[in-house]
Amino acid sequence: MKNKGKIYVIGIGPGDREQMSLMSLKAIKESEVIVGYKTYINIIEDLIKEKEIINSGMKKEVERCEITIDEAEKGKIVSIVSSGDPGVYGMAGAVLELVNKRNSDVEVEIVPGITAANAAAASLGAPLMHDYAVISLSDLLTDWEVIKKRIDCAAAGDFIITLYNPKSKGRITQIEDAREIIMKYRKPSTTVGIVRNAKREGEQVKITNLERMLEHNIDMFTIVIIGNSNTYESNNMMITPRGYFK
Amino acid sequence: MKNKGKIYVIGIGPGDREQMSLMSLKAIKESEVIVGYKTYINIIEDLIKEKEIINSGMKKEVERCEITIDEAEKGKIVSIVSSGDPGVYGMAGAVLELVNKRNSDVEVEIVPGITAANAAAASLGAPLMHDYAVISLSDLLTDWEVIKKRIDCAAAGDFIITLYNPKSKGRITQIEDAREIIMKYRKPSTTVGIVRNAKREGEQVKITNLERMLEHNIDMFTIVIIGNSNTYESNNMMITPRGYFK
Repeated sequence: MKNKGKIYVIGIGPGDREQMSLMSLKAIKESEVIVGYKTYINIIEDLIKEKEIINSGMKKEVERCEITIDEAEKGKIVSIVSSGDPGVYGMAGAVLELVNKRNSDVEVEIVPGITAANAAAASLGAPLMHDYAVISLSDLLTDWEVIKKRIDCAAAGDFIITLYNPKSKGRITQIEDAREIIMKYRKPSTTVGIVRNAKREGEQVKITNLERMLEHNIDMFTIVIIGNSNTYESNNMMITPRGYFK
Repeated sequence: MKNKGKIYVIGIGPGDREQMSLMSLKAIKESEVIVGYKTYINIIEDLIKEKEIINSGMKKEVERCEITIDEAEKGKIVSIVSSGDPGVYGMAGAVLELVNKRNSDVEVEIVPGITAANAAAASLGAPLMHDYAVISLSDLLTDWEVIKKRIDCAAAGDFIITLYNPKSKGRITQIEDAREIIMKYRKPSTTVGIVRNAKREGEQVKITNLERMLEHNIDMFTIVIIGNSNTYESNNMMITPRGYFK
């Protein structure tokens, strides 16, 4: 009988070995094939010396999933590795959708990781201590009108707002529009945290406000956290009070 | 010269050793004093044999922070340990607020962990693949009117909605009200995931819909994830498509 293959969809967290979970390390050790970007594979290099590596640097998401499922269908244990949490704008959805589409009987296990919102928050202090919204400004797969409406609703609800993919070479104006929408509901002095390379090499942390946020470097390695109406800065930390010290 | 103390505010993730990050283990090993609940301390028992343990089971959040800072101010390295991510309805905010209030010069490092939303999502499949809101239904420290407005805004924005603290012995009707608000915007057939003890011993995973969700067991160990208008169930997995297979 042919072995049924297995896929681990692994989030390694921010991209620093120390932030990986024991489970993600265990799953990688157990795997015969590793699919992933070179950058992420580098931090686990010592664990994967004897394994088959498929460096998917230049491949699109769907192609990466196809390769992963192909390998698993041969009866192998395959890890598809990416940063953050695979369930947040990551590979979990595409793998499961494609497994369903192909009527594949391979087993899939999603191995959660620390997502960028939580990593950035930890470096800023405690900005996410109250209800928060997570929004990606990438309009590659989502209509910009839908995203704009979400920003509006999140701002109206006084959510702390975490922005993923705030800006890239081809996506410049979205962060400006987002800021403008939020300004309808919140003061220009609202605390804003900007973290580049959160909890990995080259980390840069900046606390500013809604008025001045665009003066700072924001790119595709950056997470932007916009405080709610109670968030404040103190001693270089961004804190959203939860009400313990009213 | 007196050593300046240090506080690690540590999230151990869902509560299973395997989901802890290497950094959280390292910080615990480095610490001289561990402050935390018995339940969480049990999973790291072998790491803390020679350490001073302050089991804070019966103490309130603020008291736990006071003890932690007191110990650190003696020049010790102290870990305050809790489940999930300390920055999401956890201890990070209270510790930082109190350090500021006391004008303490102890160093504080927030060690992020996998928060319950991401753990529950991994067990359900891939429900959080699109923009999502995280809302706590606990009205102990937040006016219920504020929470209701947030639920309304999140529902209006077609966010996937993750509910923390959905129900407890003294908090029964909030989940019913939340469901009713969401029903104004979403079909009764909207996919809903209910995960009890996500990614730890005794895990129970249930996929249902908005209409029938209240028929299932929901308590304080449960995370409820309400899908957006595109979320679906397939082969016992909850998936929010991101648009790869349009």
